[in-house]
Parts: sequence; structure tokens; C-alpha cells
Amino acid sequence: MAEWFLNGAAVEQVAASDRGFQYGDGLFETIAIRDGQARLWSYHMDRLQKGCTRLNIDMPAMSGLSDSLNAALQQSNALSGYSVVKIIVSAGTGLRGYGRISADSPTVLLGVFPAAPLSINSYRDGIDTVLCQTRLAVDSPTAGLKTLNRLEQVLARSEFVNTGEFEGLTMDADDNIICGTMSNVFFVNNNAILTPSLDRCGVKGVMRRHVIQTLEEQGVDVHIQPVTLADLQDVDEVFVSNSQFGVMPVSSCSDLHWAVGKTTQKVMSIMADSGVVECR
Amino acid sequence: MAEWFLNGAAVEQVAASDRGFQYGDGLFETIAIRDGQARLWSYHMDRLQKGCTRLNIDMPAMSGLSDSLNAALQQSNALSGYSVVKIIVSAGTGLRGYGRISADSPTVLLGVFPAAPLSINSYRDGIDTVLCQTRLAVDSPTAGLKTLNRLEQVLARSEFVNTGEFEGLTMDADDNIICGTMSNVFFVNNNAILTPSLDRCGVKGVMRRHVIQTLEEQGVDVHIQPVTLADLQDVDEVFVSNSQFGVMPVSSCSDLHWAVGKTTQKVMSIMADSGVVECR
Repeated sequence: MAEWFLNGAAVEQVAASDRGFQYGDGLFETIAIRDGQARLWSYHMDRLQKGCTRLNIDMPAMSGLSDSLNAALQQSNALSGYSVVKIIVSAGTGLRGYGRISADSPTVLLGVFPAAPLSINSYRDGIDTVLCQTRLAVDSPTAGLKTLNRLEQVLARSEFVNTGEFEGLTMDADDNIICGTMSNVFFVNNNAILTPSLDRCGVKGVMRRHVIQTLEEQGVDVHIQPVTLADLQDVDEVFVSNSQFGVMPVSSCSDLHWAVGKTTQKVMSIMADSGVVECR
Repeated sequence: MAEWFLNGAAVEQVAASDRGFQYGDGLFETIAIRDGQARLWSYHMDRLQKGCTRLNIDMPAMSGLSDSLNAALQQSNALSGYSVVKIIVSAGTGLRGYGRISADSPTVLLGVFPAAPLSINSYRDGIDTVLCQTRLAVDSPTAGLKTLNRLEQVLARSEFVNTGEFEGLTMDADDNIICGTMSNVFFVNNNAILTPSLDRCGVKGVMRRHVIQTLEEQGVDVHIQPVTLADLQDVDEVFVSNSQFGVMPVSSCSDLHWAVGKTTQKVMSIMADSGVVECR
């Protein structure tokens, strides 16, 4: 169970008229807490800032967010060990209608969730995935951002909630593979590392950014280019990234299977060295 | 200000963990109340049912919704005259994560808002609209439905919230005009009435359905076909439909201007005869 905090006070509810509830008019970040530290905090804040700019919501002061985070961790006894913090920033309460007419300030809600590392077997042997039937709409005005409009992910996730796979890969209408429901996806093809562009749909994960940036600092290029369903038959390795689990090999997608390859292992080793300890 | 009701009790808040707030995982209907009666109730229930089926949310019993509506109208002293009821059905509270794992029942929230008819001048002379820069994503898995994922409309509406136009028309990436931010749009071209398909994006309004069905019962065809930005230069008349205001002529869109034409007047007259009294 989560504990929720609004302006430092523990709460269980939000206003019914909150535009987050009425229209999904807001954004969120899901942050890994490791030994009391918010991992990739600056990347989360950067994406939140981009989202606030796009939605024209006043970005909360980062120092205030940081203070709220620490206070919430303290109140939840989550300052040590492993947990997840979700920060939701909505456009605040409003009148009926899509237009934001009142000058209400944003709602900043913070949730602390207990968590545990995933099994070491998953990191070693890879995870199973499905290819989702749900397609992502293209040319979304909020492509790449982590808004509160997440029905595509909810629908895609519902396809395998009862079948036990760890993740599902989603495509656009043109059979381009875009991302997982809660992760970004990378492919290894003839030793080149590829990942799809997320300029027309999908979410740009902070761990994806960390992977790309860290690899490039190590002289390993990541090519942002389309990978179609047909291409998937030919790739040598597949891995996924996510703020909580870091990087994880993919051993299958529906009826396709891959061994955990040397490139994925090298990426995981580089990630572990960069502080994403789960990848060790 | 609205009054909100949850299971018959007046409330001001919903659970922070409600999936409506977390992911926009739900649907809504905005219903015109005229002399205590819910206009086009069966069409609203039909769309809500379609949405619940698509999102795999248990559709609340219609008799229960009807009873809740009447009780809310009574408590709000809204049984006579003019008001708006918003019914929100979300997937209920849940754990963190896109998957619905718990078996919680849907949240059914009902809001009663005071309202007033629009000016008679608007019905006579038409309204001004803008052509929005915000484009609608195409091939949305929830195209046509009125889900709680409404950021496209929020963004489009924000473009003219300070400039005074009544409505904005939105296009997809291929310059097809799809709908207004809160209305559906019809065009008259050489005496033929056209309205865009909403199978790839947009919301299928209940008043749009009522217009199409009532006109067809009168032997007037409505052609569902694409209308592009280029076509807009050549159309003779434009009108919009919405559950609250019925049908309204459009006199301008950005730098294009139209007179209120005979076909639009005829449609409004048919609408008025069908019980949409505002169109008289």
C-alpha cells in the first residue's frame, strides 16, 4: 500500500474537481529510491519540466520537491533500502470544461511505495514478453512525455495481466515497435544497438536516457532508428530499460526467442558500474 | 460550482489511488438536464456502455445510474430548469502499475453543475471558431470514446481560452478536420451535409448521433467523409453539435467566414422539432 502526501500532509484523497482526475491533465514520475537517494533525480526533474512546459503547468520548485520527497521518505520509514516514489503534478482543481480558467496552483501529490528487487534469474536469463494487440496512436501532441493520459498502456498491460509475462511490446499502426508498456526497448543487430524514436508516440524513459548517455560516454553508439515487426525476426538480442529495474535482457516475445547475448551483458555491466546496482 | 455525489453521498474528494486520477482509466458523460429530464439519456448510456466494454470496466446498472441522477438532482435543487450532469465512471482504486490486479468495483461519481442557455444571437448569427494548432493523434485505441484521457482537448482549448472564440476545430496530422474541442462539426457543400469519420480519433458526440439519425429519419442524408483544410475553403456552411447547446451555426474559422445558410437553419429547425429546444 502506498502512503500519499499532499503539501507535506499524509492524505488519502484528492479533490474530485482536480483536473488530473477529470481529464488526466497532468504528469507523473516514478522514481527509484535506493538507500534514501532518488536515482536519476535530475533526469526525472528534466522530463517533468518538459512536460510542465508542454502542458503549460507551473513547474513546482525542484528544491521544494526534493524537500517533500525527503520528508515523505522519513514519514514512511523509507529512508533506507528499496522503495518507489511517485510524484504526480496535475493542473490543479478547476471549473467544468477543458479550458483552464481559474488560476489555481498545481496539485503536487507524492506517493511512497515499498518495493523489492526483481529476481536475479530475470537479470541472468531474461524475461518473457508478449507482442501487444493494442497499438499506440501516432503524432500525439504529448509524445515522449509521461502524462496522466495512460489508457494505451493500461489497455496493452491488460492483455497479459493474467498470462504471466513480465512485459509487453507495443507497436504503432505501421508495425513499428515503439516501447514496452512500462519500459523502453533496445535491439542488438550485427553488434549495433538500436532503439526506436519516441517523437511520434511512446514515453521517453529516464533509464533509456541514462543508457544512451552512459553508453555514448563509453564510446558505444546507440542508433535511434525504426525497428519493425519484420525486423524483430532478425535481431540478435533484445533488452528493456526502466527506472526501477534498470536494464533486463528479453528472452522471448510471443513466439520469438533470443539468448542473452554478449552485448546485452556488456550494457548491463556498464549500467552496474554507473550505479544501477541491480544490473550487477 | 459543482456538487459531487459518490454512491448517493455528497463528496468533495476521490481516492488518490483512483485509477481515474492515476491514469485517466475511465470514461465520462456530460448530460443536459432540461426540466429535470436527462436529454438523450439512452445515447449517453449507449456510449458509456461501449466505453466500458472497450476499457473492460463493469458498466454500472443503468437503473442505478438513473436513480443516482434523480437523487443528485433533488439534493442539488436542480429538478427544474437548466443544468448539466457529469457522470464519471473510472476503473476504481488500484495498486501501482498499469495492470488492474485488484477486483475493486468502478468509481461512479456524479456532478451537478448549474447552467444557462447560450445567447440567442449565437444561434441566429453563428459563432466564431479558430483552427487549432494542436493535432489529434491518429489510430487511437480509444477513438470515438469519451475517456478520461482528454489532454488533446485541453491543449487545443488552451489555444483560444484568452481570445474569446467559442470553439476550436482540430485536425489530424494529415490536415483532415476531425471535430471541435467540445463539439462535432458538420459541413454543407453543394447542399450535401458532411461530417468526418471518428474511427481513428476524436469523440463521437451524442448530439452528433442525434443529428445524423434525426436527419436520416427526415430523408436527409449525412455523408461521413473526410473534409480537409483545403476543402474548408470551399464549403458553403459549417455548423457544430454538442449535447448541451444542440446545433449552432459557425460563422468563422480563423480567417474564413460563412453566412448562416438555409441548410443549417433547416437542420436547426428539425433539431428543435425533435426536442432540442435551444435550436428554436
